Amino acid sequence: MTTATAILQMICPDKPGLVRELSGWVAANGGNIVHADHHSDQGAGLFLSRIEWQLEGFGLPREAICPTASALAERLGGQYKVNFSDVRPPVAIFVSKQDHCLLDLLWRTRTGELPMQVPLVISNHPDLGALAEEFGARFAHVPISAANREEAEARHLELLAEHGIELVILAKYMQVLTPAFLDSFDPPDAFHRVINIHHSFLPAFQGAQPYHRAWERGVKLIGATGHYVTEQLDGGPIIAQSTVPVGHRDEVPDLIRLGRDCERLALARAVRLHLKRQVMVYRGRTAVFA
Amino acid sequence: MTTATAILQMICPDKPGLVRELSGWVAANGGNIVHADHHSDQGAGLFLSRIEWQLEGFGLPREAICPTASALAERLGGQYKVNFSDVRPPVAIFVSKQDHCLLDLLWRTRTGELPMQVPLVISNHPDLGALAEEFGARFAHVPISAANREEAEARHLELLAEHGIELVILAKYMQVLTPAFLDSFDPPDAFHRVINIHHSFLPAFQGAQPYHRAWERGVKLIGATGHYVTEQLDGGPIIAQSTVPVGHRDEVPDLIRLGRDCERLALARAVRLHLKRQVMVYRGRTAVFA
Amino acid sequence: MTTATAILQMICPDKPGLVRELSGWVAANGGNIVHADHHSDQGAGLFLSRIEWQLEGFGLPREAICPTASALAERLGGQYKVNFSDVRPPVAIFVSKQDHCLLDLLWRTRTGELPMQVPLVISNHPDLGALAEEFGARFAHVPISAANREEAEARHLELLAEHGIELVILAKYMQVLTPAFLDSFDPPDAFHRVINIHHSFLPAFQGAQPYHRAWERGVKLIGATGHYVTEQLDGGPIIAQSTVPVGHRDEVPDLIRLGRDCERLALARAVRLHLKRQVMVYRGRTAVFA
Amino acid sequence: MTTATAILQMICPDKPGLVRELSGWVAANGGNIVHADHHSDQGAGLFLSRIEWQLEGFGLPREAICPTASALAERLGGQYKVNFSDVRPPVAIFVSKQDHCLLDLLWRTRTGELPMQVPLVISNHPDLGALAEEFGARFAHVPISAANREEAEARHLELLAEHGIELVILAKYMQVLTPAFLDSFDPPDAFHRVINIHHSFLPAFQGAQPYHRAWERGVKLIGATGHYVTEQLDGGPIIAQSTVPVGHRDEVPDLIRLGRDCERLALARAVRLHLKRQVMVYRGRTAVFA
Repeated sequence: MTTATAILQMICPDKPGLVRELSGWVAANGGNIVHADHHSDQGAGLFLSRIEWQLEGFGLPREAICPTASALAERLGGQYKVNFSDVRPPVAIFVSKQDHCLLDLLWRTRTGELPMQVPLVISNHPDLGALAEEFGARFAHVPISAANREEAEARHLELLAEHGIELVILAKYMQVLTPAFLDSFDPPDAFHRVINIHHSFLPAFQGAQPYHRAWERGVKLIGATGHYVTEQLDGGPIIAQSTVPVGHRDEVPDLIRLGRDCERLALARAVRLHLKRQVMVYRGRTAVFA
Repeated sequence: MTTATAILQMICPDKPGLVRELSGWVAANGGNIVHADHHSDQGAGLFLSRIEWQLEGFGLPREAICPTASALAERLGGQYKVNFSDVRPPVAIFVSKQDHCLLDLLWRTRTGELPMQVPLVISNHPDLGALAEEFGARFAHVPISAANREEAEARHLELLAEHGIELVILAKYMQVLTPAFLDSFDPPDAFHRVINIHHSFLPAFQGAQPYHRAWERGVKLIGATGHYVTEQLDGGPIIAQSTVPVGHRDEVPDLIRLGRDCERLALARAVRLHLKRQVMVYRGRTAVFA
Repeated sequence: MTTATAILQMICPDKPGLVRELSGWVAANGGNIVHADHHSDQGAGLFLSRIEWQLEGFGLPREAICPTASALAERLGGQYKVNFSDVRPPVAIFVSKQDHCLLDLLWRTRTGELPMQVPLVISNHPDLGALAEEFGARFAHVPISAANREEAEARHLELLAEHGIELVILAKYMQVLTPAFLDSFDPPDAFHRVINIHHSFLPAFQGAQPYHRAWERGVKLIGATGHYVTEQLDGGPIIAQSTVPVGHRDEVPDLIRLGRDCERLALARAVRLHLKRQVMVYRGRTAVFA
Repeated sequence: MTTATAILQMICPDKPGLVRELSGWVAANGGNIVHADHHSDQGAGLFLSRIEWQLEGFGLPREAICPTASALAERLGGQYKVNFSDVRPPVAIFVSKQDHCLLDLLWRTRTGELPMQVPLVISNHPDLGALAEEFGARFAHVPISAANREEAEARHLELLAEHGIELVILAKYMQVLTPAFLDSFDPPDAFHRVINIHHSFLPAFQGAQPYHRAWERGVKLIGATGHYVTEQLDGGPIIAQSTVPVGHRDEVPDLIRLGRDCERLALARAVRLHLKRQVMVYRGRTAVFA
């Protein structure tokens, strides 16, 4: 029922006329815009734009769109990305022992809620191999320790390259990625490639054991945060957050149980927004477009 | 810190190139767009647009913008509205005996949260006269009954005209407006002029005594709905809804108490969205733009 | 870490001294109460109580608790139920073609979140057989039509009896149970045995196609309701409700997608509350105890 | 319609039979219990109880209840408090320049939502004098600076004593109370006497300028926290928390505006729970009873 669309994301210095310029470029090629959303950050003098138009009837063939957009971005002094709505990119999911986020992501992929494919699941523990394989993913068990972290991450990068992975999702991976890994897989620009779920309402309870510390503090709400990973632990740009009320009868295991629902929802929402190309990063923050 | 802006709302038959056409018109006159948002309703073949740009540096003087937009709308076969962000329109609030929504609206007006002025409060009861006058509004006590409804509404229309009222807010007025009143003050088009707060999560519990019926039904959430008024009782386009959890210990007076907070929030949000010109109506529904 | 507990639920005519009488009975037998919660419905003159105490050190053996509670209930003119926290009752899940609620319930059972076992899944379609069997449940495909409804429900009752089923969960079953079935499996008293998930915020959008009707009405929130099934369609006592905001960009398929999360959460919460024996029914409503 | 009740709050070392002992004491004097709720903290071996019963028909006169409860508490080695539902205690509200929380509390007091009286409003600025006086409160302007803090707080204590103040509410007071003040007005035990509203979702953004820091961090939800004040800045036991979603279009002034609603709701809820004697403190946390 929906025909395929192209999505242009552009971030560049702000100036008058940019909306006309971008929409004009689409219209000049006969494109019918189905969504167009923009944001100006006046503090930083930045303009962010997301334009989505139907490929049917568009004057340029797919392979010509990127070069043309590239020229446009260069002229505007900006960064850009073009994606097509009917392409399901290959995604790798990193897990440890907990299955709830992995199962949820795989199930949502199968239903089509998440427009991606999952050829690869990587874990430092063997526990979730059967689950991954049941949904058709290759399961790579790569044990990791302080001693072998470098070799393990080299193996990760090999696997990611082998499967042409575009996005990595840390679905309760419980390990910190090194700057070297990030530099290699996700060099810093406005378009990030690694999403993590943290089991607290960031910036509260950064770091380890957030549910235990939430219980200690006696909060009345707990939460989860889906965010891009940067070199700063639990400090990357936030995409989606979810909370749930708790009470004095809820012990730490109850917080963990209730938190699993928060985690699944916040992670799935963050991943879907990313895949729909609705998220752009600027000044360590995200704009989440309609 | 923010300079004044012009806001164009347009609704017309959909076709390719509309985003370019509208943004192009603004840019051609030197306007710097700060927000632009659009929606296509494919079922009805409709295009809705809201464009906001800085008046500073814009080539047309204020008084020339409307005629030009009018010509544009005519060419596109659409309806339009132009407003300016620094104009605070005169609004009349209709009340009965309950003060919470009135107090909240008047307080939010005074703080500047609601960019309006309130020269007139109308009620069928004398109770809230002092409150209205304390905030500088004229209080008109117009008793209403089955017998005198026609004369009372004639008096309402006189008062509205006298104060140049642009928007009527029913803040727990507890009376139904007649079709004749609506035809006169708010002739049907895409831009409505009467907002009501209903004390339920519509379409649940339309009509009288929603909290009593919610208690009877044993719901676990109650709510409130801010909506435009049409001739269909509690059936007009919904702008904002708010809910709050309730439990078996909450009796009807507790539902009424908790509901007051829902009502204040949903009504204030609906009014603010309207005044920021973020709401457009199509097919009995609203689009609420960013 | 938690030792097994006994849970007494009692509903009887209200009078002074009932809390002392019930807690006194537990204490007289050396029981250490870990939770005690009560509710008086003054309109109906009813007293509802839930008391939970540790079995360790309790003076009566398990098999003697029920007869003693029965005598107590008879003396108070009430209804009662005794359950033990370490018993996982056999539950049957009825499904049609949609898998999200079934998968969620089976996964939560496996993690221990839902203290039940699922020996039996019944469906009028064959689609979910593999999923059921993967989690160790027997899958019974019982086609149903207007013509064979009576035989089909007779088959259902046979299967339920065969597996000693205590609770039936309708997890998007999309069929109405007949009064005859309910009379047989769930005779009317304060302790219901069939839970359904309805894909709307009841009482809004009772009946068929709630998401389509929610779109038509233009609501800004959609929801789901976990409730006990009675002979009145979508009219049974509500246990749990969940909502999620929607906007004008959300088409019917988006409402269905967002609703799936609401449905999973509201159903799982309702089932857990039931299994923890926190729900009691009176006057067509539920009390949900801490 | 509701007759007056007595409310006993008790916190003592846990042991079997406590529910029976407390409810038995009420029943032995002919009291009809309308609510009874308890909590055992197994980590600390503590038992917390709140019992509410009708005064009508109760065998002890009001003035005899406290001494009897005191003897009971002594025997159990616990702390206790007895309150009566028809007593509206005198409360002082401390403010600075912002009026939203003060207006909200005064309005809720007038409607009867908050069962208290407000004879005294104290501020370090003169701005809110007229508002306080309009609702019948004495307004005391006590300027405060690093130099005169000691004298100012001495004046505060005088005023509190003069008006027999039982509870202090910091409604955006923006000043830190000294340990000396707290020691004098609110000596440490299970029953606190000072409530503050903090404009963040604690423990996130403790300290100054939480909205600015929330904007910097790019959170997708902001919040407010109603909590008891202790000597640890923003570290006291949390009573109620409230959140609201925000997006990239919301600048700091928008966060402040949206936060005001959070603050009003979280503070009003915390104050009502306190006045209904539903809150007890243990291990730096609160139990909030039904």
